Amino acid sequence: MNILVFSPHFDDESIGCGGAIARHVAEGGYAAVVFMTRGDTGNTTPGQEATPQETEQIRKREADSALKILGVQARDYLDLPDGFLQWTPEAVKRAAAMIRKHRPEVIYAPHAQDVHNDHKATWQIVYDAIPRAAWSAFPELGELWYCPELRGYEIYSPIVTPNLYINISEHIETKSQAILQYHSQAKQIYNDAALGLNRFRGAMGAGVTYAEAYLRQKVEIV
Amino acid sequence: MNILVFSPHFDDESIGCGGAIARHVAEGGYAAVVFMTRGDTGNTTPGQEATPQETEQIRKREADSALKILGVQARDYLDLPDGFLQWTPEAVKRAAAMIRKHRPEVIYAPHAQDVHNDHKATWQIVYDAIPRAAWSAFPELGELWYCPELRGYEIYSPIVTPNLYINISEHIETKSQAILQYHSQAKQIYNDAALGLNRFRGAMGAGVTYAEAYLRQKVEIV
Amino acid sequence: MNILVFSPHFDDESIGCGGAIARHVAEGGYAAVVFMTRGDTGNTTPGQEATPQETEQIRKREADSALKILGVQARDYLDLPDGFLQWTPEAVKRAAAMIRKHRPEVIYAPHAQDVHNDHKATWQIVYDAIPRAAWSAFPELGELWYCPELRGYEIYSPIVTPNLYINISEHIETKSQAILQYHSQAKQIYNDAALGLNRFRGAMGAGVTYAEAYLRQKVEIV
Amino acid sequence: MNILVFSPHFDDESIGCGGAIARHVAEGGYAAVVFMTRGDTGNTTPGQEATPQETEQIRKREADSALKILGVQARDYLDLPDGFLQWTPEAVKRAAAMIRKHRPEVIYAPHAQDVHNDHKATWQIVYDAIPRAAWSAFPELGELWYCPELRGYEIYSPIVTPNLYINISEHIETKSQAILQYHSQAKQIYNDAALGLNRFRGAMGAGVTYAEAYLRQKVEIV
Amino acid sequence: MNILVFSPHFDDESIGCGGAIARHVAEGGYAAVVFMTRGDTGNTTPGQEATPQETEQIRKREADSALKILGVQARDYLDLPDGFLQWTPEAVKRAAAMIRKHRPEVIYAPHAQDVHNDHKATWQIVYDAIPRAAWSAFPELGELWYCPELRGYEIYSPIVTPNLYINISEHIETKSQAILQYHSQAKQIYNDAALGLNRFRGAMGAGVTYAEAYLRQKVEIV
Amino acid sequence: MNILVFSPHFDDESIGCGGAIARHVAEGGYAAVVFMTRGDTGNTTPGQEATPQETEQIRKREADSALKILGVQARDYLDLPDGFLQWTPEAVKRAAAMIRKHRPEVIYAPHAQDVHNDHKATWQIVYDAIPRAAWSAFPELGELWYCPELRGYEIYSPIVTPNLYINISEHIETKSQAILQYHSQAKQIYNDAALGLNRFRGAMGAGVTYAEAYLRQKVEIV
Repeated sequence: MNILVFSPHFDDESIGCGGAIARHVAEGGYAAVVFMTRGDTGNTTPGQEATPQETEQIRKREADSALKILGVQARDYLDLPDGFLQWTPEAVKRAAAMIRKHRPEVIYAPHAQDVHNDHKATWQIVYDAIPRAAWSAFPELGELWYCPELRGYEIYSPIVTPNLYINISEHIETKSQAILQYHSQAKQIYNDAALGLNRFRGAMGAGVTYAEAYLRQKVEIV
Repeated sequence: MNILVFSPHFDDESIGCGGAIARHVAEGGYAAVVFMTRGDTGNTTPGQEATPQETEQIRKREADSALKILGVQARDYLDLPDGFLQWTPEAVKRAAAMIRKHRPEVIYAPHAQDVHNDHKATWQIVYDAIPRAAWSAFPELGELWYCPELRGYEIYSPIVTPNLYINISEHIETKSQAILQYHSQAKQIYNDAALGLNRFRGAMGAGVTYAEAYLRQKVEIV
Repeated sequence: MNILVFSPHFDDESIGCGGAIARHVAEGGYAAVVFMTRGDTGNTTPGQEATPQETEQIRKREADSALKILGVQARDYLDLPDGFLQWTPEAVKRAAAMIRKHRPEVIYAPHAQDVHNDHKATWQIVYDAIPRAAWSAFPELGELWYCPELRGYEIYSPIVTPNLYINISEHIETKSQAILQYHSQAKQIYNDAALGLNRFRGAMGAGVTYAEAYLRQKVEIV
Repeated sequence: MNILVFSPHFDDESIGCGGAIARHVAEGGYAAVVFMTRGDTGNTTPGQEATPQETEQIRKREADSALKILGVQARDYLDLPDGFLQWTPEAVKRAAAMIRKHRPEVIYAPHAQDVHNDHKATWQIVYDAIPRAAWSAFPELGELWYCPELRGYEIYSPIVTPNLYINISEHIETKSQAILQYHSQAKQIYNDAALGLNRFRGAMGAGVTYAEAYLRQKVEIV
Repeated sequence: MNILVFSPHFDDESIGCGGAIARHVAEGGYAAVVFMTRGDTGNTTPGQEATPQETEQIRKREADSALKILGVQARDYLDLPDGFLQWTPEAVKRAAAMIRKHRPEVIYAPHAQDVHNDHKATWQIVYDAIPRAAWSAFPELGELWYCPELRGYEIYSPIVTPNLYINISEHIETKSQAILQYHSQAKQIYNDAALGLNRFRGAMGAGVTYAEAYLRQKVEIV
Repeated sequence: MNILVFSPHFDDESIGCGGAIARHVAEGGYAAVVFMTRGDTGNTTPGQEATPQETEQIRKREADSALKILGVQARDYLDLPDGFLQWTPEAVKRAAAMIRKHRPEVIYAPHAQDVHNDHKATWQIVYDAIPRAAWSAFPELGELWYCPELRGYEIYSPIVTPNLYINISEHIETKSQAILQYHSQAKQIYNDAALGLNRFRGAMGAGVTYAEAYLRQKVEIV
């Protein structure tokens, strides 16, 4: 089975659904990640300021390391403006092209109630890209593909009532190692935050040691 | 300064705001806890079933231990039906009487979006009791008192956008010990969940090691 | 597989999910219906006024006919006040007892956004009864049972974004016949309304001839 | 009386408010339709693929036939991007110019809760165009006009609580014929869906055979 | 034309819709007021404390004066608990009986978003009483009556987007005099508040000197 | 202490928070105002039509007079399109640059629920600019600055439940004089509306003569 993760910034994929990715790959699946923004405005280490171009290069190398640890087989970059991601027809079309290219059965994106602008915008872009990837139009975007399931993941704002928990207890070390590749970011803070939240979700929601919580959107016809 | 915590069940006060209580007391403050329900339907250890009356007694003894660890100076019991807490005029009046008795400057209750019925009902009862405690009516409920601030705490459902973080890093051990007094409950699970969530809130929201997150409601006139 | 339908009034079960019931039974399943209210305030045929007691008896006989057509194997009556259904601890406990008795894997109730008071109240009572049926308390309510899935069905107010469609094309005649057993009610109107809505749902949402639309609530742990 | 219908795509005007248009014209009124998008991405019949330009031409010819059947006296095209309609100052200005041109007393647009991007965007554009058409500015957009009433119509997502029903029982054949002019679209499916929903609205909401349901927005000063 | 005003407390009718009442009566209409609560917990003048029974009697006399000034022809008292009004089947039935008795074409009640418990409860009770007054059941509640329009009025919490403004410029003195009859209450404060808000609504919303703003709920079938 | 007011149009700053500005300055503070739009579409006096350029110049002169009366020490113009303000990366960056330039401890903007497009857009732009002004990126926008508090003010749509009232009783004349400088606008109407609303807020919410009501957003870490 193919999964496709849309990540607003370099590291959101690991923080939000690194456990699910690692488990999916460990179980033999195919995983691809699409990074929405260029990452050129990420916080840099004080005293070691980098140009936006350098920051972008540093973060892409860190992402390479993280995705390698998670076992991700493919990645793509939309290189949209970091911190100012915006729903545009062009952004939706490019996301739809990614869906047609990677042909996922499940798509991951930040959940709809996250308050960070780039996270919300990613969700809205992906939400609109999914049906358009399946329309018999836009031949320039590749071969039609319909993905039936969208899972919203947690980064900054928790989900009030998740409807899916993924047990990542066996993959928590891998997830943590992936997050810790992001040296240019507040990696230790994000690692602590992610593991804390996953511990809460595991204990309170799923009855396991570590879990990621999701808001799943799936329309079924039976 | 006085604080008053309304706790739906025996253990919610420790899970939700045990750190804030411990810190408040350590800083010289007065803390009281009002337990809304009788606790007679709490899960019992399989194979060691207790009658509702025994369960109630066991949980009240556990609460005694937990509150002692937190340093709580006073407690009261409303003994309302566990699992079926309901807004009634009588419940609101009794909560108002508690406010008049303990004269708090800050009240703690489960936040308004928690999906558990008893948690939501506690919030609604307390929300309506606060103005009624300050009305020049109901002399049978005690001397008038106006509490200007209500803080919603997290138990089961996280707050999407907290507006108050309390740094409990120095009191995390005390909080944990309090939770662990609830032997009849799933104490280890709740302890892990609470510490995980507090770690997330500390790292992601407050820039400290452990924090409790709150939704504060306070109307100010300047 | 067992399903359990909570119906606010005699006929809501047929209008809202008569197709799903008929299909479920046709596929070999077990279906039970619990009627929440007594039905004593149902509109009576002008010129043929009946006492509330007579109305109740008439409607229960009509329900017998309808359930027989749908193939329902069991029914129960909570006999709560028609037109004034209210969340009470007692109502929740009685609904929980029904869940423990019928041991369903899927529960049907009117969806949460329906504007009719009795429909909304049914949903809230059932929503709270589900976890309580699984608590290790209330031995007087029967043996513990956990039902993992709740499906909200449409009667008066449509669902804005359904997440489940059930193809009832093969069972539309059965559903219609069941609705038409309610001679004391505006049976022809409800039949036309239900078939019209199911036609809309089939064509626009499910790509089939007739479908019922649902708002499914299910928390999964994988 | 003049009415003006804003239709996201060729056929939404017939599906959503074809009955109201036909009745309005039959009663001697003037009706104009503004098509928001170019229609170039409409699904084409498999095996008979057309270029976007051909699709656009085909759909405009189909619209001509449909509007003729409904009796619409005027039409305009904004030719905005199909599938990617977006609120922009330019789109709002062009919609305002249409209002000034056609001087309607009632405007129809897809209702605000429709989940389709183009439907929602149409509503938001029209909602903002109405006051701007009445501002004493933008002389290049034509003579000032204030339209006091906006009616949201149903296409894909039903309205939960409509506040206006229009009895279209006498015009259902005309509406159906109009929908069926859209040969390049899934005309039979949309026809069945629309008539099913109108049957539901007629029976359950309006006490007539067929009705269209609307969410009316009108501010009155008396 | 008959109007019926449901007022949570003695004075809400004058503060919230005193202008509309006065204008309606001045134009030859019939107006009745139903007071929901007993008024026994109203603030009393410090130093002049009264028993609840005395308070109730004082407020009813003040209401007599106010209603006389407004020209109200009939009043009724439900005498429900002041400060703790609650939706109950009995309260809804009694409100329905009032509707059947006074046969209004328009009903006024506090709007649905008011945060005061008694105001919200009044709205919910009235909202559910309206259809029940029209059901062919409950003969003990009087002759069937259907009231097609409910207008939510402003007391404490303003309406965000009113859809009806009533010009009360000619009746502002009458309204003010009515409010000022409530000597036992904070009459000067409420008078200033009401006139201030009506000035805002007149200037900003209605283009007149004084207006009351409403949230109208009316379902029309044409 | 510095405050910074973002005003969608010339006069919103005086109508919405003129009292708070005047009081702040009177108490020795620094106040700056940023005007979002060019004001070129403001209503002009009939018979005295001006070109957009003239209108813009007239309104900027009026704003000079108003700000002088309020005591504002600095002003800036973003000159974005009047009536069509839109969230764009560029608008957010320019607002962030203003925050970095004026270094406020409190920012004022129209509250989030205002229904006017330009008011809502101002709030969203400012809401996103605040964190970006504090990011260690965008050196071209000036020196980093973090403003911890955002206060939403009332212009057209009232706030349902304010959480901050500012007593402006001593400054109501100053506020009124500021509003009245806007000769090209409906100055008398806006003056009456603002003073009426402030009277309502003073009497009903704050227990003073005149008050402005706000929706404060502030995250605190203690």
